[in-house]
Amino acid sequence: MKTFDLAIIGGGPGGYVAAIRAAKEGLNVALVEGRDLGGTCLNRGCIPSKTLLKHAEVIEEIKDSRTYGITVNDFSYSIEEMVNRKNKVVNQLKNGIKGLMKQNKITVFEGYGYVDDSKTVTVKTGNGSEKLQANNVILANGSKPFVPPLPGLDTVDYYTSDTIFDISEVPSHMVIVGGGVIGLEIACIFNSLDTKVEIVEMADRILPNEDPDAADYLAKEFANNGITIHTGSKITSFISDNGKTTVKMEKNGETKSIQTNSVLISVGRTPNLTGTEELSVDFDGKFVKANQDMKTSIDGIYAVGDLVGGFLLAHAATDEGIKAVNHILGKSAKKESIIPRCVYTFPEIASVGLTENQAKEAGYRVKAKKVDIAANGKAIAAGETSGFMKIIAEEKYGEILGVVMVGAHVTEMISQATSYMHLEGTVDEIESMVFPHPTISESLFEAGSAWLEKGIHFN
Amino acid sequence: MKTFDLAIIGGGPGGYVAAIRAAKEGLNVALVEGRDLGGTCLNRGCIPSKTLLKHAEVIEEIKDSRTYGITVNDFSYSIEEMVNRKNKVVNQLKNGIKGLMKQNKITVFEGYGYVDDSKTVTVKTGNGSEKLQANNVILANGSKPFVPPLPGLDTVDYYTSDTIFDISEVPSHMVIVGGGVIGLEIACIFNSLDTKVEIVEMADRILPNEDPDAADYLAKEFANNGITIHTGSKITSFISDNGKTTVKMEKNGETKSIQTNSVLISVGRTPNLTGTEELSVDFDGKFVKANQDMKTSIDGIYAVGDLVGGFLLAHAATDEGIKAVNHILGKSAKKESIIPRCVYTFPEIASVGLTENQAKEAGYRVKAKKVDIAANGKAIAAGETSGFMKIIAEEKYGEILGVVMVGAHVTEMISQATSYMHLEGTVDEIESMVFPHPTISESLFEAGSAWLEKGIHFN
Repeated sequence: MKTFDLAIIGGGPGGYVAAIRAAKEGLNVALVEGRDLGGTCLNRGCIPSKTLLKHAEVIEEIKDSRTYGITVNDFSYSIEEMVNRKNKVVNQLKNGIKGLMKQNKITVFEGYGYVDDSKTVTVKTGNGSEKLQANNVILANGSKPFVPPLPGLDTVDYYTSDTIFDISEVPSHMVIVGGGVIGLEIACIFNSLDTKVEIVEMADRILPNEDPDAADYLAKEFANNGITIHTGSKITSFISDNGKTTVKMEKNGETKSIQTNSVLISVGRTPNLTGTEELSVDFDGKFVKANQDMKTSIDGIYAVGDLVGGFLLAHAATDEGIKAVNHILGKSAKKESIIPRCVYTFPEIASVGLTENQAKEAGYRVKAKKVDIAANGKAIAAGETSGFMKIIAEEKYGEILGVVMVGAHVTEMISQATSYMHLEGTVDEIESMVFPHPTISESLFEAGSAWLEKGIHFN
Repeated sequence: MKTFDLAIIGGGPGGYVAAIRAAKEGLNVALVEGRDLGGTCLNRGCIPSKTLLKHAEVIEEIKDSRTYGITVNDFSYSIEEMVNRKNKVVNQLKNGIKGLMKQNKITVFEGYGYVDDSKTVTVKTGNGSEKLQANNVILANGSKPFVPPLPGLDTVDYYTSDTIFDISEVPSHMVIVGGGVIGLEIACIFNSLDTKVEIVEMADRILPNEDPDAADYLAKEFANNGITIHTGSKITSFISDNGKTTVKMEKNGETKSIQTNSVLISVGRTPNLTGTEELSVDFDGKFVKANQDMKTSIDGIYAVGDLVGGFLLAHAATDEGIKAVNHILGKSAKKESIIPRCVYTFPEIASVGLTENQAKEAGYRVKAKKVDIAANGKAIAAGETSGFMKIIAEEKYGEILGVVMVGAHVTEMISQATSYMHLEGTVDEIESMVFPHPTISESLFEAGSAWLEKGIHFN
């Protein structure tokens, strides 16, 4: 039986990054992956969506080109070519990871990993199985789309994020069940492709876990762009009828029907527990329980990423994977990581830390300040005036508790706010820092100055 | 004679921001501007260039749309509409500043301000003049394009940055004299409009004051995009011939001629000293001398922005204006500001702190690490793979001395690096921070990890 210092189950952003870091630190590492290196993020999540969102962005620019003195007489697109490009992007990155595995001398097992309490891993493939023994195991199994048992759903065709990015024909109409990050990003893609999109969300607003100002702003932009949002709406049944689907729902006791030719289910994700059946680890609800060093209840077995809950985000999984490796190497996590959150809609939302309500609930004396991007010079020059930046800080000392950004490219700007939280900078220090002009990033300076009641372009 | 706590000469980003901040702090402020509120930056610099660069960016996306599965059969543009939009953008922002002046009860004098040692300001307009008395004066006169006395230049038509953004016809060929920031940004604009652009630079590379890696990278990209760069080349004469211009130059003793139908002179800027003739302030070369609080050699007279040299950048002027106001209010600048530098070319360059050579010359034991953006997931998804991020840090403690970024949207990302320098974060702290995935901003994490020899996707 082959033995390893560390066996990692799952080759997503939690697993493969941990494998590389562990190998660089001198450990002998096995990585077990039954499907595709890169996991959900690369193959069925972040990367496919961002690729198609880029295509949608180009279409939006073309549609808007008159604004910039440019006339496009006519244009067309091919969903087949778009999906092909998405596949090329995914394959390029997947080959990159393969190369990194080789370069770092990580043994990759192509099969599903089943782990027991003695850290023996059985790798099952179509052809049989193989056992390996590890001193430490990191479970990075990831998650899969949660499909709720809605009446009639089993009688209709529907997409999940596992299948939508391989779509072969653009539907004229789409009902998206679930107004979370995934549903909203896909709404933007298909809206740009001229699909009539209707989103059905049970909660009383989209993005129920995000800052309400951001969610409300996005809801208005979506409405302006022709996307219909049904909030507070509960789906009661799906009825299949001659290739069409009728979606029945209820809002405040009133019923409503939408006829559509495509349905996307994006109501959340559930941990992938395949391979953990023999383990006696403790659970926390449906998630595997792990401490701040990602240790489970069994010594030498760690769990990271979507399997342990928290933010189901690729970079959270990566951070957790590195923490697990650090603990194996004898280093404990000094403090809780600050995890930024990004939504790549039009406009984008990026945030970090507490929302205003969370900060209040945590007992802080909160002062928040929001400035619109609409007055920003770069935003006006670039025709990207949607959005705002908001600082949530402790009233007396200006400790930054959270930052919310809505606007073009803000997912690339949130790290300037994370830096402040990570390095424990204050609002005073935002105000005394020089931001380059003209950039949209300056809006953080504006928000900081206005928070201090010394705003330049804002009170 | 009207009296003021503070009179500011010049309504650019140095002057108008200082005026607002001073007014918010309770000072009675006069602002004297002979031309346009917003100064060079808004009227003839940053904003016009960024507006036209956006138009160029849309054209580039359209030209590149096949990559994304989109077919544009044909398109056209109107330089007239582009310039009109530029004017609309400028006017919107100018009206914004006007509104802010009113809102903050700042008295605006429309005329040129002449200052004497007793802080009496004479405002001269076409119709006459008016005098006002101030307790403090901030000189924020700005600068103007420097036109060198090259043989024959006076016999040909040429543009400067003062005139190029109002161009009425797109030339088929353009010679840009000077490969600094302004020349390079304008090169990108006209290259996208299908002008054949040739840049002539005396130094042995473009952007002679910027990190050589960045300058070399950009030079290669320019060459790939069809822009010709003549470095180490000295112009010897301009000859006008029937509406065409022949530009003669010399490189390593060899002579060369280019025939063109348009010339842009962008070899630098020179301080605008109009109105300072009666002042006995000390100079430092061609610039007014000022200390870290922006005080000149005369008590109560401050100078900021392009007038005092240093980085001739809008945000540097703004920062200096705020420093001058702070000093008037009795607060001295605690430390030197860290000024980021942005070049909005395709791809963009953004940098902060010392270049590698400057750091070595300053006596640091320097370790630098550069990672390419080409392998970044978001960059590949978005088709924006050009560029790199480079960390220049002190070898032992990882103190960050400088950061250089080349790539799409990096001008919006440099503040994450400035934050680290401003808050005295180290490379270790970059490595322990969580960057959102997928973003190009993650390349800073990659550079930091690789610097520590713990790189994930890089060694």
